[in-house]
Amino acid sequence: MIDNTFPGKDITLDDLATKIPLAAKKTAEHKSVFEVAGVKFGGDVVPVFAGPNTVESEAQIVETAIAVRRRGAHFLRGGAFKPLTFPYRGPKYFELREEGLTYLSKAKREAGIPVITEVMEAKYISAVAEVADILQVGARNMQNYPFLEEVARSRKPVMLKRHYGASLRDWLGAAEYLLYHGTEKLILCERGVVAPHTHRAASRFLLDIQVVPAAQEVTHLPVAVDPSHASFWRPWVPPLALSAIAAGADAIMLEVHPKPEEAAVDPLQAIDFATFDALMRRMDAVARAVGRRVLDS
Amino acid sequence: MIDNTFPGKDITLDDLATKIPLAAKKTAEHKSVFEVAGVKFGGDVVPVFAGPNTVESEAQIVETAIAVRRRGAHFLRGGAFKPLTFPYRGPKYFELREEGLTYLSKAKREAGIPVITEVMEAKYISAVAEVADILQVGARNMQNYPFLEEVARSRKPVMLKRHYGASLRDWLGAAEYLLYHGTEKLILCERGVVAPHTHRAASRFLLDIQVVPAAQEVTHLPVAVDPSHASFWRPWVPPLALSAIAAGADAIMLEVHPKPEEAAVDPLQAIDFATFDALMRRMDAVARAVGRRVLDS
Amino acid sequence: MIDNTFPGKDITLDDLATKIPLAAKKTAEHKSVFEVAGVKFGGDVVPVFAGPNTVESEAQIVETAIAVRRRGAHFLRGGAFKPLTFPYRGPKYFELREEGLTYLSKAKREAGIPVITEVMEAKYISAVAEVADILQVGARNMQNYPFLEEVARSRKPVMLKRHYGASLRDWLGAAEYLLYHGTEKLILCERGVVAPHTHRAASRFLLDIQVVPAAQEVTHLPVAVDPSHASFWRPWVPPLALSAIAAGADAIMLEVHPKPEEAAVDPLQAIDFATFDALMRRMDAVARAVGRRVLDS
Amino acid sequence: MIDNTFPGKDITLDDLATKIPLAAKKTAEHKSVFEVAGVKFGGDVVPVFAGPNTVESEAQIVETAIAVRRRGAHFLRGGAFKPLTFPYRGPKYFELREEGLTYLSKAKREAGIPVITEVMEAKYISAVAEVADILQVGARNMQNYPFLEEVARSRKPVMLKRHYGASLRDWLGAAEYLLYHGTEKLILCERGVVAPHTHRAASRFLLDIQVVPAAQEVTHLPVAVDPSHASFWRPWVPPLALSAIAAGADAIMLEVHPKPEEAAVDPLQAIDFATFDALMRRMDAVARAVGRRVLDS
Repeated sequence: MIDNTFPGKDITLDDLATKIPLAAKKTAEHKSVFEVAGVKFGGDVVPVFAGPNTVESEAQIVETAIAVRRRGAHFLRGGAFKPLTFPYRGPKYFELREEGLTYLSKAKREAGIPVITEVMEAKYISAVAEVADILQVGARNMQNYPFLEEVARSRKPVMLKRHYGASLRDWLGAAEYLLYHGTEKLILCERGVVAPHTHRAASRFLLDIQVVPAAQEVTHLPVAVDPSHASFWRPWVPPLALSAIAAGADAIMLEVHPKPEEAAVDPLQAIDFATFDALMRRMDAVARAVGRRVLDS
Repeated sequence: MIDNTFPGKDITLDDLATKIPLAAKKTAEHKSVFEVAGVKFGGDVVPVFAGPNTVESEAQIVETAIAVRRRGAHFLRGGAFKPLTFPYRGPKYFELREEGLTYLSKAKREAGIPVITEVMEAKYISAVAEVADILQVGARNMQNYPFLEEVARSRKPVMLKRHYGASLRDWLGAAEYLLYHGTEKLILCERGVVAPHTHRAASRFLLDIQVVPAAQEVTHLPVAVDPSHASFWRPWVPPLALSAIAAGADAIMLEVHPKPEEAAVDPLQAIDFATFDALMRRMDAVARAVGRRVLDS
Repeated sequence: MIDNTFPGKDITLDDLATKIPLAAKKTAEHKSVFEVAGVKFGGDVVPVFAGPNTVESEAQIVETAIAVRRRGAHFLRGGAFKPLTFPYRGPKYFELREEGLTYLSKAKREAGIPVITEVMEAKYISAVAEVADILQVGARNMQNYPFLEEVARSRKPVMLKRHYGASLRDWLGAAEYLLYHGTEKLILCERGVVAPHTHRAASRFLLDIQVVPAAQEVTHLPVAVDPSHASFWRPWVPPLALSAIAAGADAIMLEVHPKPEEAAVDPLQAIDFATFDALMRRMDAVARAVGRRVLDS
Repeated sequence: MIDNTFPGKDITLDDLATKIPLAAKKTAEHKSVFEVAGVKFGGDVVPVFAGPNTVESEAQIVETAIAVRRRGAHFLRGGAFKPLTFPYRGPKYFELREEGLTYLSKAKREAGIPVITEVMEAKYISAVAEVADILQVGARNMQNYPFLEEVARSRKPVMLKRHYGASLRDWLGAAEYLLYHGTEKLILCERGVVAPHTHRAASRFLLDIQVVPAAQEVTHLPVAVDPSHASFWRPWVPPLALSAIAAGADAIMLEVHPKPEEAAVDPLQAIDFATFDALMRRMDAVARAVGRRVLDS
């Protein structure tokens, strides 16, 4: 009457061996360690990606790059194009904006900070890869397997965001696609999941802190956490960032904006420079409490 | 301290006017009615799409096409390529199989039944569109906006599956992309959502029957239901198909296979011809009870 | 590293034998059939419980009893006390209102219809049991095991609502408590579950239609559905009630009020007499389409 | 067509004023500070409750009390009776075991540590209150309002666990019941929620770390976290306990057992003394990183 033997929502030992052999740990201690642009992942330092949701202007991104770099961020984040849930928006968000990449490139040079930015479509991979040190694959593209293959063929380091409806099994399956097709330096990123209660009508997701130890139990890949997209609410970002560090996250992604309340996209979640400054110190202190660090000094 | 005015998970009147004006109803009675291959959608008849998950052989798909056509199915379904959650599988599922389209085409001709089949990648749209009367966009591609634009440019009728983590608002946003970029005949399809309890370890989704009246309250687009993927469990498919008809679904998609237990993909959910036969009669009876019909006779 | 063998969210064959032997089916066809106040459960007729959320006045409940009886309802429902989520409310809802029971009793006599009503506390069981033909245990009390024992000791027929966060396994565990402690006539009732998306900010639950076949696969107990509490939105109640009948529900519970928009509790979900009248006919037609019936004539 | 103005899942400013005035913060800085048995809540120290799920023997609980006290725990936890999901279990868990209270009392005296223990039924409140410094109300009783009233009338300090399907609004509504009926010292406790993905088949819940800042944003009550029941998996307990401290939790509850794999109840989640020892030091270090502490020294 009931047959629960068929593979389902959860990862089995057989899955590890046959479905995700490249993503699966070989031993309990197995952990990927690699460098991107001189920043080590999977080691003692917990790299921080900081910057605005969207590159709005040269001034905005250069100012932010310098500000976050000075406060210890390891990577500048910022979107050069931004697909939203609906087709209507200003022309500037509709396609890859070449000037967005140009501004990111300038910010990278002026601040001396590497860049992580999302690539949305296969046809833009080479253009984005010229500026980006890490290509970000967004949650909505997590299951776009042909796109994952193209991204993997670029041989660039990749950060793969978890779709907000995806199981750990789905997510590691997508990671396996990237690894199978050529990605050698791969970071996973939890960014909030759908859940019955998210505590604010405008907050669509719940940070799944439990997936950090759950993922690290089965995969050697570094696991990043993005508390900004998870919570969608500025006051919750610092405590959730700290909780992610304490849970063992291998990297943190944060939305930081010179004037958060004027941000073009998602103005409720970005934090300002002063909040970022205090948070970096706190994250460093928490990281040191669990045997790691955020700041080099 | 709390600001719940920002747009969130649920659709507002403002969303209807500014975010999804093409998908939104103009009046309470507004309902799209259109024909595809001589089959009317949005009218009294509730069209049924039936066939296997995957086209496995010419014999399998031709036999199925004839069998479901004889029992009153309006469209043959069957996948010519099938991306799964992991990269490892036999070569036959890895890429579009031209012979899959050839077999579908033959089945269509021999059984005299139109075809709905999924297209997975932009580069295959024209090839698939030659055989398919309706292009199916799968759940995993629901938020692949560049792909939606390409699909829309084909001007073919489209069925857009809801991603299993997507809100109604997300789903209608994706529909708006298609409508905005040229799709004129668009069907939505609910196929199960992630939920805390799905009642079997192997069943990953829960049929969201509530989304049928909820969607029909705000959009004029026909709403189909796929109980096979929702339940992932053969014994639940007939009661859920009947419930969808009773709830007002505008079309039903079913996995039907000559030998379900030997199906190459998802063998737990397909039903056999005899079950399909009985179910068609029941669905027709339920449809008539709510003022519609499934069978023409 | 991973051990999935420990009992978890889903029901196993071992659970059926050792955890819920009384609730479990003995054979695939095993189904409880019993009578309460001359109404048969588990048979061809699908009984309908109809009435207001709360007994507001003698006039209201007598009028409703006569109205729903005339339209074919098998039981009058109506709450004589009503605990809400917060402690503040008018004095009339705070405790069991003896006059509520008196009014119910009068309505029962005048309309010639049996009564189902919720009992909230052990100390009121005997008073409620004098009027009620079926004792309803609310979702919030589903896991109040000492209370379940007391209810069972009354030997009255019981309807056990599923808690909105409970798995099927939790729910059947609660049913087993009742059966183990003396309940002989037991009905289960699905009334909506928490879920990531419920489609309206004010609608807290999603009707879990899938639990109907899932429960009927493992238990012989009749399974009722309450679309009013599940949807919390009047326009969705008729399609969801019809879907429940089509899915095989063994009884239907509906909130019906003479003037729904003036209902003291939950004014968004009750339907009026005219809607109830049309719905009864539709439910009967759908029931007949699946080999059952709602109306006697 | 759509009316989102009706109160729903999320807390509104109006709710704070009229539904939960006692639980609501009066100012942004408002935070309850109180002492129980000489342990301050809501202050710099983050109290830790540690001990087994169930009091199994005098030796077990006395040994555990001494062991956790020595390592800095502030309260001993341990259940003197334990309702499970099914009615079948050994006689020893079936009712309040007076000897369980006797053993707890002895452990309290011998180890010099106050006690928190669950009370399951109104009739046992006075017996449990003689031993317990804090009465724990379990998740399953969160919405058992008559019971909450009885608990409140005891005037004892209370810890109220969140039901795994409850919204923050539901939870604070239950807290308001306690406050309204006389509880003066009240602690909330998050212990995991139902969610689409929990990462192991045997793990039924997901730790909702986001509810910590969300609750603290609206209520002055201290918010505890129980990572043992949330994760149901020993290896995840330490990282989740640390994440809770970092997120700002005001207390931590942990299952600790002399021989976890031999625990009578929930053997997969308890940690042993050595793990507890290391975790206490780590929690203290993380607490200090966020301006608090766990250990006194």
